Amino acid sequence: MGKGLTKRSENYSQWYNELVMKADLAESSSVRGCMVIKPYGYAIWEKMQSILDKMFKDTGHVNAYFPLFIPKSFFSKEASHVDGFAKECAVVTHYRLKNDPEGKGIIVDEDAKLEEELIVRPTSETIIWNTYRNWIQSYRDLPLLINQWANVVRWEMRTRLFLRTAEFLWQEGHTAHASKEEAMEEAMKMINVYADFAQNYMAVPVIQGAKSESERFAGALETFAIEALMQDGKALQAGTSHFLGQNFAKAFDVKFASQEGNLDYVWATSWGVSTRLMGALIMSHSDDNGLVLPPKLAPIQVVIVPIYKGKDQFDAVIGKAEQIYNQLKSLGISVKLDSRDNQTPGWKFAEYEMKGVPVRLAIGPRDIENGTIEIARRDTLTKENTTQEGIVEKVQKLLDEIQANIFNKALKFREENSHKADTYDEFKNLIEQKAGFIWAHWDGTKETEEKIKNETKATIRCIPFESPEEQGTCIVTGKPSNKRVLFATSY
Amino acid sequence: MGKGLTKRSENYSQWYNELVMKADLAESSSVRGCMVIKPYGYAIWEKMQSILDKMFKDTGHVNAYFPLFIPKSFFSKEASHVDGFAKECAVVTHYRLKNDPEGKGIIVDEDAKLEEELIVRPTSETIIWNTYRNWIQSYRDLPLLINQWANVVRWEMRTRLFLRTAEFLWQEGHTAHASKEEAMEEAMKMINVYADFAQNYMAVPVIQGAKSESERFAGALETFAIEALMQDGKALQAGTSHFLGQNFAKAFDVKFASQEGNLDYVWATSWGVSTRLMGALIMSHSDDNGLVLPPKLAPIQVVIVPIYKGKDQFDAVIGKAEQIYNQLKSLGISVKLDSRDNQTPGWKFAEYEMKGVPVRLAIGPRDIENGTIEIARRDTLTKENTTQEGIVEKVQKLLDEIQANIFNKALKFREENSHKADTYDEFKNLIEQKAGFIWAHWDGTKETEEKIKNETKATIRCIPFESPEEQGTCIVTGKPSNKRVLFATSY
Repeated sequence: MGKGLTKRSENYSQWYNELVMKADLAESSSVRGCMVIKPYGYAIWEKMQSILDKMFKDTGHVNAYFPLFIPKSFFSKEASHVDGFAKECAVVTHYRLKNDPEGKGIIVDEDAKLEEELIVRPTSETIIWNTYRNWIQSYRDLPLLINQWANVVRWEMRTRLFLRTAEFLWQEGHTAHASKEEAMEEAMKMINVYADFAQNYMAVPVIQGAKSESERFAGALETFAIEALMQDGKALQAGTSHFLGQNFAKAFDVKFASQEGNLDYVWATSWGVSTRLMGALIMSHSDDNGLVLPPKLAPIQVVIVPIYKGKDQFDAVIGKAEQIYNQLKSLGISVKLDSRDNQTPGWKFAEYEMKGVPVRLAIGPRDIENGTIEIARRDTLTKENTTQEGIVEKVQKLLDEIQANIFNKALKFREENSHKADTYDEFKNLIEQKAGFIWAHWDGTKETEEKIKNETKATIRCIPFESPEEQGTCIVTGKPSNKRVLFATSY
Repeated sequence: MGKGLTKRSENYSQWYNELVMKADLAESSSVRGCMVIKPYGYAIWEKMQSILDKMFKDTGHVNAYFPLFIPKSFFSKEASHVDGFAKECAVVTHYRLKNDPEGKGIIVDEDAKLEEELIVRPTSETIIWNTYRNWIQSYRDLPLLINQWANVVRWEMRTRLFLRTAEFLWQEGHTAHASKEEAMEEAMKMINVYADFAQNYMAVPVIQGAKSESERFAGALETFAIEALMQDGKALQAGTSHFLGQNFAKAFDVKFASQEGNLDYVWATSWGVSTRLMGALIMSHSDDNGLVLPPKLAPIQVVIVPIYKGKDQFDAVIGKAEQIYNQLKSLGISVKLDSRDNQTPGWKFAEYEMKGVPVRLAIGPRDIENGTIEIARRDTLTKENTTQEGIVEKVQKLLDEIQANIFNKALKFREENSHKADTYDEFKNLIEQKAGFIWAHWDGTKETEEKIKNETKATIRCIPFESPEEQGTCIVTGKPSNKRVLFATSY
């Protein structure tokens, strides 16, 4: 029953907030808009990090670290970047505190005012391209394929744990190339890496595509995104990859001598995913009983709960429980044996259900007599009695099955909540009634996009790579269109 | 010859700065005091992180993440913390930028002034203990064994790459315990973990001990440290672990119901190491030719350089080079095959020497004929011709040998530069002539410590755990002392 978790059908947003807290993932801090990522939530993020980091390295990238602070003047250098980028930033103006002469704690020392204010990085294109200027002279220095794991700050007014916080954790790749084609290829490669990660590890099906011009990253010529559908019918942008052209190279004067001996501006990409992925993960799979985690990202994949009363029963079951624990562990499965005697099995069952542990094994005195064990799966909430013999292989198989089932369930949900709209009325009806993904024709103009957004709150999530050619007419203006694009209301 | 690296004997400090740059480890950024950690330097830091992280987890700790910003008022809560801690901090006062109405880029929006200034964390005791208040009710919630990997900012006036930078990367452990004994045990356990890491991975011998009262962390009742001796005779504090008593629990009102039903303040520790370890690593082992890295932390443990002129020779040697590369790789050795044709073998040799790659293999056409290969070791700068047969086992053995040799060399250096001083004159002579570690008797008072510091710049690095009992008299006051303490000038 999830310890009084609000039902999704009653209040989805409240369900989410409660779940994040009750599953011990994160909480708000005493600093406005900043969260504390609790150990259980952070363990999931660490798994994400380690898998993504390996994927980045396997595709030739290396990590580095650039400063937290960016001189204010850097933001003015790339015109579309400064115009388009939110100006809600944390601004450092002083570098010293002092004791209040009146004895009331500490105050800012007005004598220690910075000549130029520093901005806590909201993203690092400017400081990184300012650095790349000294690293790149010739085509032999290219490509530069660098990633950074870091914290960034964007002073959001309305924040929600993981989904939108003033400070968040992310990775940002910043690559430099000798040709437009190579940079474009890189931007595409990385959106594919993100889609691979979302689908094969997070078990979240995504649509890949390009952003419309007005939804592009400030300073980008193309923004590619992966879009996932949440259970409340809203879309969530889970990762982006930008083809930046030569914009930042021009702003920071980064030129290279080409193989032919010409001096040319360097081509750029940037790409990132953040702790927002945690929000996507939680909202894609979880239910009214709590978190549901795909085995590949679960900090605890299997929990073993021994059932006993008193020392005799404990002694009778613990040996077998430990034996299974060790067997699973030796296979690289992350398993926990919870033999605490200050909580009942029922309490433990509810706890691990809330925390989304994929497989639960329970073993009591009768199981010892009969050679049986109870195996329960979190995704379907089903359980069965089975034999202890072969249990390890069964668990292994079940983990794979759960991973696949969670993905298929999410895919099915998306299919059931994807619709075509051929008229604007149909479109508006869909948005009002079901939300979900709406495939519709669009005339390609900013004006139409803006009108739809103002009237329905729905935006173009992306112009999908895999949307088939199809002659049609824009739902608003009736102008010709040769491809449906993906609309939704979004997080 | 290290591409014109200044010799240590000429100017140690310049040698260090040049080495950090030429080995591609880090560089200064355009933000005062902040560094850019370059990919090669960051790869070493990643190895350090991953080993330390495993050591922390093996000792029962979990990771979490707390906010970058700390409300100013939090600093006033723990009296000794605010008094003792440097007040050079980055202060965030505003949360928005705007376009300059006069069209000169962007300016700070004065309408977006924070009610309470936020400090970029110089360390996180205050915000973490403010959070722990809600996490701890009873002894069942204890111990809390949490670590955080993060960036911190201390507005240092004189900065040096890795050794002292305004922003640096570190980990900070913050643990909460039900008893004084348990907290003290934790603080000791972690300084042991640091010593283990320094000696067995970094190959840096360290002295463990307690800080004198005046050198303790602000808010700590005991500070334990590991101290290493650099090649210029100065000490470097490489890690600290603090027993914080109940100070932060009292400041942030963190109480727990004990097993006996009493309400008591929680006991605390904190402990950390930072990118400063990179400085210790570089300065402990490197020589006038460049970096020397212990194999356990080297991003590239073995480099293979094929020697060839023209395509025929290339074809003749590359097969064997690749075969050895694959064999080494399959053993988990991090190996690079550098077959670039735009650099000479000589250039490559100098490059990998500068970068401290422990083992270099070179193979040319004559080696193919003779079944031989050249193997060179970075630590001793020696090389020999050997047979291709058994080369993989030889490399494996050599890596272990180099790891041990580097440590022993550093240990020998420390022994040769450790001296006893029995009078203040002797002490002053030693400081002037050789620096190094000086073991001397001290009367245990702040006044004497202060006098020595003012007159010689030497400080008590620690009161070593393993200093034997020995009756003596303070070198300054002649008062009785029963143990020598460790003095040195320091970074």
